[in-house]
Amino acid sequence: MKQFFSVKDIPSLSLAAKSALESKQNPFADEALGKHKTIGLVFLNPSLRTRMSTQKAATNLGMNVMVMNMTSDGWALETKDGVVMDGNTAEHIKEAAAVMGEYCDILGLRSFPGLKDAAEDYSEDLFSKFSKYCGKPVVSLESATRHPLQSFTDLITIMEHSHYQFDQEKAQYIPQGKKPKVVLSWAPHVRALPQAVPNSFAEWMCKAQEEGLVDFVVTHPEGYALNEEFTNGATITTNQDEALVDADFVYVKNWSNYESYGQITCTDSSWMLTLDKLKPTNNAKVMHCLPVRRDLVISSEVLDSDHAIVIQEAGNRVWAAQAVLKEMLKNQ
Amino acid sequence: MKQFFSVKDIPSLSLAAKSALESKQNPFADEALGKHKTIGLVFLNPSLRTRMSTQKAATNLGMNVMVMNMTSDGWALETKDGVVMDGNTAEHIKEAAAVMGEYCDILGLRSFPGLKDAAEDYSEDLFSKFSKYCGKPVVSLESATRHPLQSFTDLITIMEHSHYQFDQEKAQYIPQGKKPKVVLSWAPHVRALPQAVPNSFAEWMCKAQEEGLVDFVVTHPEGYALNEEFTNGATITTNQDEALVDADFVYVKNWSNYESYGQITCTDSSWMLTLDKLKPTNNAKVMHCLPVRRDLVISSEVLDSDHAIVIQEAGNRVWAAQAVLKEMLKNQ
Amino acid sequence: MKQFFSVKDIPSLSLAAKSALESKQNPFADEALGKHKTIGLVFLNPSLRTRMSTQKAATNLGMNVMVMNMTSDGWALETKDGVVMDGNTAEHIKEAAAVMGEYCDILGLRSFPGLKDAAEDYSEDLFSKFSKYCGKPVVSLESATRHPLQSFTDLITIMEHSHYQFDQEKAQYIPQGKKPKVVLSWAPHVRALPQAVPNSFAEWMCKAQEEGLVDFVVTHPEGYALNEEFTNGATITTNQDEALVDADFVYVKNWSNYESYGQITCTDSSWMLTLDKLKPTNNAKVMHCLPVRRDLVISSEVLDSDHAIVIQEAGNRVWAAQAVLKEMLKNQ
Repeated sequence: MKQFFSVKDIPSLSLAAKSALESKQNPFADEALGKHKTIGLVFLNPSLRTRMSTQKAATNLGMNVMVMNMTSDGWALETKDGVVMDGNTAEHIKEAAAVMGEYCDILGLRSFPGLKDAAEDYSEDLFSKFSKYCGKPVVSLESATRHPLQSFTDLITIMEHSHYQFDQEKAQYIPQGKKPKVVLSWAPHVRALPQAVPNSFAEWMCKAQEEGLVDFVVTHPEGYALNEEFTNGATITTNQDEALVDADFVYVKNWSNYESYGQITCTDSSWMLTLDKLKPTNNAKVMHCLPVRRDLVISSEVLDSDHAIVIQEAGNRVWAAQAVLKEMLKNQ
Repeated sequence: MKQFFSVKDIPSLSLAAKSALESKQNPFADEALGKHKTIGLVFLNPSLRTRMSTQKAATNLGMNVMVMNMTSDGWALETKDGVVMDGNTAEHIKEAAAVMGEYCDILGLRSFPGLKDAAEDYSEDLFSKFSKYCGKPVVSLESATRHPLQSFTDLITIMEHSHYQFDQEKAQYIPQGKKPKVVLSWAPHVRALPQAVPNSFAEWMCKAQEEGLVDFVVTHPEGYALNEEFTNGATITTNQDEALVDADFVYVKNWSNYESYGQITCTDSSWMLTLDKLKPTNNAKVMHCLPVRRDLVISSEVLDSDHAIVIQEAGNRVWAAQAVLKEMLKNQ
Repeated sequence: MKQFFSVKDIPSLSLAAKSALESKQNPFADEALGKHKTIGLVFLNPSLRTRMSTQKAATNLGMNVMVMNMTSDGWALETKDGVVMDGNTAEHIKEAAAVMGEYCDILGLRSFPGLKDAAEDYSEDLFSKFSKYCGKPVVSLESATRHPLQSFTDLITIMEHSHYQFDQEKAQYIPQGKKPKVVLSWAPHVRALPQAVPNSFAEWMCKAQEEGLVDFVVTHPEGYALNEEFTNGATITTNQDEALVDADFVYVKNWSNYESYGQITCTDSSWMLTLDKLKPTNNAKVMHCLPVRRDLVISSEVLDSDHAIVIQEAGNRVWAAQAVLKEMLKNQ
């Protein structure tokens, strides 16, 4: 695997999930793989779970980890070509990425979108350039439009809380009984947030639906449709109550408006997930990528109930990262 | 040991000191203990000695270390329950602590007091919640009211510079000759500082006095009494000259007023420790937790003299931390 | 080696280069040397290459690395003696350095000049004090007036791209054919930059010239002479075109004025290196320490051409650092 940027980099979700769950059972089985290998984790934005879980995964694989916080430890990078660099950017991404590639066998990059220009953000210019210029396999630690380590984690968390059996012959998981119904449900927030997590979750769940693993529904207020590229095959509705009926998993997440790009056009607090809203579900498990603002996005009573599996979900970040790094190390 | 927060977490100072001094003699003897174990060091405030010495101790024990600076690398945490999180805090400590517990076998937490509300600070709400929600053993890297790794270090530093013999039968150290007289002496400062270091030092020295290891005296200006919970059994006087007579160790430290909470009510520079003030002592050794402001808290001539053992004291931070982590690892 | 601060700390450039190039061939050959040894990398200023390459080098040697960012993780240090510390500095370098010396076997320090007072910067007071008080071998990660790890790197990069043979008897490299002509060429910039990189490069190239390895020329605008201490033996000219004739290596770098200390007295964009300017050279390789501002210091067409070896140069930072640390570890 030369890149982990979107679900397209994963040939089979079943096999990827299997690898992650095996690492969870036996975290140090592949410790020899990463010996004398270095991963550089480059953060252009803050991080808690991604930073710690990826570092843990790399260490489990015997790798050496170097963390680089560009904002506090480094400087601003130029990404545009052909500009006279007489302003605030001190280094072009061409050189910065290539240099980091000299020191590292694998790189991870986190970079949030500006949320001002949809075309720019959705071009994923920064990630692509970094990936191209560094010359090494790159793991997205969340880019402008996707957060694939989170979505991979979400997949294995859903699988752990459902009933699947691995069919050796078909080389894939088969649901035992009814396929779980997974609902992505928009929630209110006070800040304009990226679409990366819901885009990515939707793109992974659409593929999981294709592979026969889940049924996938998206619900959001009028006007909050995600870019269609990510929701292809999903059932989409603006009726949250209807969406939640018989749900097995409710994935709650705010995102800013994609059409009115980067704006907050709905603050309707009735979209917050509460215990009441969970009544018509199939005793649904509640998920969120965290950090979550309590009593704004999800009510405290939900987060403090057995419905919530957000902590186990966060814990699983290690195993998703480890599966990805394992694959990259095997190919070196 | 499930927690290292105060002297109450240490059953016997003698045995704890013995363990620390053994690690100092043989730093890598327990290197196998920490194999495949991860410690997360979480800083809500800056740190030099605590950060480096705890990292060193963990590495000596073969652990993997992850450092998390919440202010620069992460975001502000909410600690109050039941608030609608529509303000500046992006994540509740419930989730943040629990998630870090997923990635780490042991956690360390540094968090200073606000110095505005004594009841809030002395409730140690943040440390308790972090400890409760993370579900893993937690080492205080200095909390609102205590700095136990520093006090443990101070104890072993005093013992190294005195004469004790370990009595195998009683399983404790016995002073050879006169018990050392240890004086905690307030000093001026330009900023309002926490009471954590003096509280903690007093609580450890009171217990050391109970165990027959030292005689303990506290001296400070009128109105600067520490919370009584910490000085129970100590001789307390506002007469610094008297306190210093025959002292073997002078532990110098500023703290802000506890009664007029968090205020600076005395700036009397005559409380600064000078060579002159050391004359009536028993050629006392001078200690300070560092950082120390020269010629404000302690005169340069003292710090540059053989009286000062502040560097060795700081060096001993490694061995105190290592004794604590060793104990936590043994119990896992 | 007790210190790596300037070229004077290197008895023979040939032997030093040989050691670095051997590490490049066999990065983990000396992994046992650093077992149970700790290096502390102390940054008073931002860093990318130096931070990552030194960390990598230390890890290759089996060392434990602790990074300390004094500005974000720590606090401001006092360097002057005899001041009452009632201002913004919280700790004197005497204590800070000594304490870090307690935790580390080797220390690295980065500290930029203030560029206000030449005498103060050129006294290298901070580096000397740090070195003196920490009591351990210290590697400069760039000080006020020098950047020796960069210059060492530059030397081996020049040697790799030229033809030398190692003469075992004389214990030195001998150029095969014409000695390479190396030109240090000033370039414009929008900020006042330190003279550390050009000083250091000049001092290393002057020594390389003495050892018969290169011919060395410096070119800069009127008034931009470096401190003579660093350019002793170099050919110096203000005629860039003339300097570039038959050059084998062009080392491009901006620096602020030394005579009008820390000022920008020339902004002439004709000093930028372009493809046109490279025509009279001997198909010269172009070097820069990075970060480089494109189309201000060097044109993009040069950086994107085969002339540029800036990435390989940055990659070589690892091997220079590794040679230095190896030598320090051998002496412990």
